[in-house]
Amino acid sequence: MNILDLSAADATPLSAQQARARIRRGEWTAHTSGLADGYVQGNVVILPEALANDFLRFCQRNPKPCPLLAVSEPGQAKLPALGEDIDICTDVPRYRVWRDGELTDEPTDISTLWRKDLVTFVIGCSFSFEEALMQAGLRIRHIDQGRNVPMYRTSVATESAGPFRGPMVVSMRPFKAADVIRAVQITSRFPNVHGAPVHMGDPLLIGIADLAKPDYGDAVDLQADEIPVFWACGVTPQAALAQARPEFCVTHAPGAMLITDLLNHQLAIF
Amino acid sequence: MNILDLSAADATPLSAQQARARIRRGEWTAHTSGLADGYVQGNVVILPEALANDFLRFCQRNPKPCPLLAVSEPGQAKLPALGEDIDICTDVPRYRVWRDGELTDEPTDISTLWRKDLVTFVIGCSFSFEEALMQAGLRIRHIDQGRNVPMYRTSVATESAGPFRGPMVVSMRPFKAADVIRAVQITSRFPNVHGAPVHMGDPLLIGIADLAKPDYGDAVDLQADEIPVFWACGVTPQAALAQARPEFCVTHAPGAMLITDLLNHQLAIF
Repeated sequence: MNILDLSAADATPLSAQQARARIRRGEWTAHTSGLADGYVQGNVVILPEALANDFLRFCQRNPKPCPLLAVSEPGQAKLPALGEDIDICTDVPRYRVWRDGELTDEPTDISTLWRKDLVTFVIGCSFSFEEALMQAGLRIRHIDQGRNVPMYRTSVATESAGPFRGPMVVSMRPFKAADVIRAVQITSRFPNVHGAPVHMGDPLLIGIADLAKPDYGDAVDLQADEIPVFWACGVTPQAALAQARPEFCVTHAPGAMLITDLLNHQLAIF
Repeated sequence: MNILDLSAADATPLSAQQARARIRRGEWTAHTSGLADGYVQGNVVILPEALANDFLRFCQRNPKPCPLLAVSEPGQAKLPALGEDIDICTDVPRYRVWRDGELTDEPTDISTLWRKDLVTFVIGCSFSFEEALMQAGLRIRHIDQGRNVPMYRTSVATESAGPFRGPMVVSMRPFKAADVIRAVQITSRFPNVHGAPVHMGDPLLIGIADLAKPDYGDAVDLQADEIPVFWACGVTPQAALAQARPEFCVTHAPGAMLITDLLNHQLAIF
């Protein structure tokens, strides 16, 4: 089933609750881009309490790549700040289960894996600011080209906390100069979903040797009159997790995010 | 007498009223950069009423180069919106008098030239946003180098009104990428003093062939890791005046601005 099938089922856009209900029933197990338009989606990291405090400090020290939308109580699968009915064991379309740093499974439900010491982190994602950019009339290259956003490991180190460390990962979107200015203005309004860019122009200055060879996602075309603009990316905490190799950890599968009841517009700070 | 002498006279920074009083007494006839710190300074254009409506529409159509702070009543030398005691005939350190488009005089007082049909326009200037940039810790190259800001005629046409037309003139300040992002954020808060940049990066895209050869002001050094950032400039209306060649017109002399009672901080929109 694809998004169009889901939308056709009731002929109106899905609310966050409707989308989550279908995901919970196992009717949607793929990426969530474009699903429940207008609602905030989040990256998910689930860790044992023993590591959770280190990870919380890691996020606090690196707010641009790791903007925290919510942190659960230990052992609680609920996230009331993001939606009354959310059950983190069932409401993500597809999970990744990691043991000692190795990917061991990609289930659509983690109820049987739940433990009383697990803490859930939900981290803002770029879908929210991309919606704001498009509503302002800007074209986003990877969306126009039907690709994943290109992402790059940089030479910029994150601030470490406990075992969590590693490079900042950035996503790149090219724009003409006038749209770069608009993009800075618009994304500055959304600090909870990565906020303003962290770099623009020469990629070598942040250790990116070749824009045509992203470390994650797909390369996109760049025109001569365009400036590549780089935002801190939610893959940064995943790179830090890969480095820390926790004994147990669950994340969302790439692109299959948690859909929250928050509206993107609610995140704007002015 | 220089600025230091003026400041030494009372050992505290001058208020706008104090600075204007000294200018009015003829004790200060030079540029006003750094004088009455914190107060908004403005470009001045004084035109006969017959042309004033065209010029007003020119400013309305080109708000980035021509952000209007105030327009006087015809024949009134007062500008109460900018300061209770302002007398536009005496309160600018040095004027330029133009007849049929030719510079004919540079007096320090225009009381004897005043006419009942004259309308005064005060247009925001970049001193205000430069103060905000420096307060945020950014270094401004031309200030560090003790030069005038470099300004360039562009291939971007203004929207014409009556006889007023011509190219947009821009000023340029180079920054590293992270400071470019900060500069967009900071100057976006000040739409009444040119606001956000209009371009960044490749100067050729707006018709500037050589940054080392500004049309006005002085060239500044540009490092390999810096991006040139361009703001709409208050010289734009002067270029439009030069093109229109009004029978009579008075402007401030370059850099010798009207000091108002408005605080730069008051202009911030958020």
